[in-house]
Amino acid sequence: METEVKHLEPVKKTGLTVVITGNGKGKTTSALGIALRAVGHGMKVCFIQFMKGDIHSGELDSIKRLAPEAEMHVMGKGFCGIMGDPYKFSEHREDAQKAIALAKEKITSGAYGVVILDEINNSLKLKLVDLPQVLDLIDGKPPLLHLVLTGRDAHPEVKKRADTVSEIVEIKHAFQQGIEPQKGIDY
Amino acid sequence: METEVKHLEPVKKTGLTVVITGNGKGKTTSALGIALRAVGHGMKVCFIQFMKGDIHSGELDSIKRLAPEAEMHVMGKGFCGIMGDPYKFSEHREDAQKAIALAKEKITSGAYGVVILDEINNSLKLKLVDLPQVLDLIDGKPPLLHLVLTGRDAHPEVKKRADTVSEIVEIKHAFQQGIEPQKGIDY
Repeated sequence: METEVKHLEPVKKTGLTVVITGNGKGKTTSALGIALRAVGHGMKVCFIQFMKGDIHSGELDSIKRLAPEAEMHVMGKGFCGIMGDPYKFSEHREDAQKAIALAKEKITSGAYGVVILDEINNSLKLKLVDLPQVLDLIDGKPPLLHLVLTGRDAHPEVKKRADTVSEIVEIKHAFQQGIEPQKGIDY
Repeated sequence: METEVKHLEPVKKTGLTVVITGNGKGKTTSALGIALRAVGHGMKVCFIQFMKGDIHSGELDSIKRLAPEAEMHVMGKGFCGIMGDPYKFSEHREDAQKAIALAKEKITSGAYGVVILDEINNSLKLKLVDLPQVLDLIDGKPPLLHLVLTGRDAHPEVKKRADTVSEIVEIKHAFQQGIEPQKGIDY
């Protein structure tokens, strides 16, 4: 027998700043889950990917399923600074700066219940964006907007300003046993 | 300028066993993200909730957005053994046993690319299901099926059998500052 589900509303509604960080798998996945659940509640969601892009992104196809309530913007070239990266630092930074401008526009528009800045923590760590720019997004958000910032190496000042911080720790990964990334789990 | 996304397929396809555990927020959320992404890849998903039920579940509404490729079964009464729980242990166990039977049926059906057993780790910890039952599900899964087991306190034997294990650690939570659970983030 399946169970009926009721909903309770909080007495005081608040927009939360949530940081999802750590070296483990599941930060972007968790953000996708937030998007799915928020759309289920009838909220509008804006998902901006700061870094990923070139390879292994099923995210774009999946978020289309949530249109028009959710929209995704993939802004980065992906994999900045790692082996085989064909782009200059200045090109990565230019993309990230465009992503910051878009984030600012979306956050302050008042049109969304949730804005997700995926991999923005990495962008900050790699100096593609600057700390004051990220803090400005947090400090300038509408009171009821939930703002989600993902990516490893979250800056201490960003964590300090967040209401909720989760760290995903990799205990074990299939890669370590020589298993390639698998569709449906790894991308 | 937004970036075009390409897809690469692994040479050797494998169905992974993934454990998402830890005391932090985001285990079920991460599983919802897996469901969303898998549906984006055209895979069929079965999501079985072992424990939750009574309060604060936007999950049911959201997963409906992914029908018919994704289906959700909420099997538990929720919040076993905590203050105010009106049900007997035997009633919780009966529900969990039905969930195990359903999981076995879905896993062995061959009809799904991903099966998610949400909060099964807690069910095992609370003795609503038994270790051999959970190991039997893992050992008996079709080779290409991804099996995802979530919930805090994952059993060491379950983690041992998994390909990928992520632990979500709570660094900070809005509850601690007296903020009620908020729609779109906490449920």
